[in-house]
Amino acid sequence: MLHVNENYSRIKPTYLFAEIAHRVAAHQQAHPDAKVIRLGIGDVTEPLAPSVIAALHKAVDDEADRSAFHGYGPEQGYAFLRERIAEVDFRARGLEVSADEILVSDGAKCDCGNIQELFAGDVRIAVGDPVYPVYVDTNVMAGRHDIQLLPCTAANGFVPGPEGCTADIVYLCYPNNPTGATATKAQLQAWVDWANDRKALILFDAAYEAFIRDPTIPHSIYECAGARTCAIEIRSFSKTAGFTGIRLGYTVVPDGLVAYAADGSAVPLRPMWTRRQTTKFNGASYLTQRGAEAVYTPEGQRETRATIDFYLGNAKLVREALAAAGYAVTGGTDSPYVWVDVKGDSWAFFDRLLAEANVVTTPGAGFGREGEGYIRISAFNSRENVLEAIERMKKVL
Amino acid sequence: MLHVNENYSRIKPTYLFAEIAHRVAAHQQAHPDAKVIRLGIGDVTEPLAPSVIAALHKAVDDEADRSAFHGYGPEQGYAFLRERIAEVDFRARGLEVSADEILVSDGAKCDCGNIQELFAGDVRIAVGDPVYPVYVDTNVMAGRHDIQLLPCTAANGFVPGPEGCTADIVYLCYPNNPTGATATKAQLQAWVDWANDRKALILFDAAYEAFIRDPTIPHSIYECAGARTCAIEIRSFSKTAGFTGIRLGYTVVPDGLVAYAADGSAVPLRPMWTRRQTTKFNGASYLTQRGAEAVYTPEGQRETRATIDFYLGNAKLVREALAAAGYAVTGGTDSPYVWVDVKGDSWAFFDRLLAEANVVTTPGAGFGREGEGYIRISAFNSRENVLEAIERMKKVL
Repeated sequence: MLHVNENYSRIKPTYLFAEIAHRVAAHQQAHPDAKVIRLGIGDVTEPLAPSVIAALHKAVDDEADRSAFHGYGPEQGYAFLRERIAEVDFRARGLEVSADEILVSDGAKCDCGNIQELFAGDVRIAVGDPVYPVYVDTNVMAGRHDIQLLPCTAANGFVPGPEGCTADIVYLCYPNNPTGATATKAQLQAWVDWANDRKALILFDAAYEAFIRDPTIPHSIYECAGARTCAIEIRSFSKTAGFTGIRLGYTVVPDGLVAYAADGSAVPLRPMWTRRQTTKFNGASYLTQRGAEAVYTPEGQRETRATIDFYLGNAKLVREALAAAGYAVTGGTDSPYVWVDVKGDSWAFFDRLLAEANVVTTPGAGFGREGEGYIRISAFNSRENVLEAIERMKKVL
Repeated sequence: MLHVNENYSRIKPTYLFAEIAHRVAAHQQAHPDAKVIRLGIGDVTEPLAPSVIAALHKAVDDEADRSAFHGYGPEQGYAFLRERIAEVDFRARGLEVSADEILVSDGAKCDCGNIQELFAGDVRIAVGDPVYPVYVDTNVMAGRHDIQLLPCTAANGFVPGPEGCTADIVYLCYPNNPTGATATKAQLQAWVDWANDRKALILFDAAYEAFIRDPTIPHSIYECAGARTCAIEIRSFSKTAGFTGIRLGYTVVPDGLVAYAADGSAVPLRPMWTRRQTTKFNGASYLTQRGAEAVYTPEGQRETRATIDFYLGNAKLVREALAAAGYAVTGGTDSPYVWVDVKGDSWAFFDRLLAEANVVTTPGAGFGREGEGYIRISAFNSRENVLEAIERMKKVL
């Protein structure tokens, strides 16, 4: 008889955003004329940059031409892209990360979910609370049920420190999803020191780094001394360049970063991640990799930065409107998310905004117990829709 | 201290294609003027179909236009594609598979590798020998070391039956990689009956189904009575439509297909696979899904079929040339692979073909113990190169 992985019965049967999609669909069906504005899921709305579009068309033409055709590529990603990532995202900022240390994938969500496979079943995990559900669910699915929750509250500015953290692996995400909070260099350095002391690992999710405008806030965990011996960094093109639909991300596993075998011997992690990816993944789309290459041209950098500035403008409007309405808000600067203290049940508040304002947000409870009492509002939409959503929310709040 | 997943140390260091690349590079360095012809790795060489190219350009234009922009899609794939798959790949052949039962992914390799996550750590696995290494390696990485090998030999026509198979899950792949063998409906029906009797599961890898021209050979496991209660089918656009570089595949998990909890209660598998995909995957590229939709137009069907006919023409030439030279051959009809009994050490034969004919093949030993004594020749190349490779091989064989 074929037995299932019983760990699946220990996670909620529906992923958070699937539940939201379900409620929105039901609302839309009941009110077919309602013009629903979606500030829920963190999906971009603006078109891809012109230089990316041009590169994608060129890549499609390559696939039409026998002499330029690209079939299977390296599972780790093409050198043409990995070199540009190393140069622009790291070396230009004075950080030592080489192309060999970068593994390109079809998205940060996949890497965030799959990276835990490299570790023993009984390693102890710590995550923020509230948290991006993927960190928790993928560990529970692998049998790691006893996860340490680090409260992210108004009291600690939504940035918990390492004091009292007894985990082997901590997931850190800054700028944070869902709270929009950013971490200072000193705050990240405390985590790096903690990890090196304990031979623990930081999984640093930097999906939103492109939203940082404050020059004192680190974009990469590798800005901290000693991070190369204790941290893996995961990056995304989804928010940086609007690639949510065409899929691309990457993970940095530094040379010499190790974990330990049962006998105490050090095991380098990059060969393990490479083995994982070469065995269970067949590389990201050639088209998308060519599109990403164009992000690193001067035009691509200028165009994608302008789009992020636009979203940041939306975030500022949302943040200021909610603050003016008397709500305590976090995020919305250096982040596309505004985290709003709604002083009550978050699903009820979500349902009310959907029913009365036709505005979709994300209830904080979906991100963990400490998220209860908050909603997350995303800045990804047109200016017109954001302004209209603000007007509608003002009327019902 | 952070402990690694020790199972990774138990994966056979196959490095098959790395070893081949190393030997080819050494040969090329020693003979810089040699024109090496590659009939090794199973990657396509012909450009994408014109209707696919047109659809890709159109999809790129969508991503440049705010009103047509597609960000995150459904993790299961867009309905526009799943409906066409259900219609053309199944219903048009009289098979009951609905769009809801189809989950689109970025490739069959990922699905083949990830599907084992749904099952308990101690389920027993069976695979053919020789075999596509992904089935074995992904189970070993998950701690399932005791894998039953089903010998695929000349004696059983390279199609083992279920007699003596004591596994909970069997991986079947027809047309087969690497042997090129196909299974009759009666042979597959025997496996389906075995699985239903035992409450076991068939993971049916149909990546090469588009190469079938013999009308009596099943394209889908669901052509067998009772398969919907015991089989998951995995399909690929890589060989069917040349998508090795742009990435797409899908997996069929029928309604009502179940495995069992420890208490013996039935657990439906599709919700589990959906939960896995929605948690660890973020959908396939919108561009590629639009390209795949075009495969299902009449022009797309005609164009992709013509390309496969071309590769089948190559395979026929290779098969006939090797047979005429006195070798026993399998595959090469209804399959892009020709499996040649070289009556001796497969790496020695590989080296001889490389040294004397400048032709790259794949030594059978790389696919398992029963692959020793064989080489796999791939039909993926230009007609000119295939003809020249045949002429050169004739001279040295």
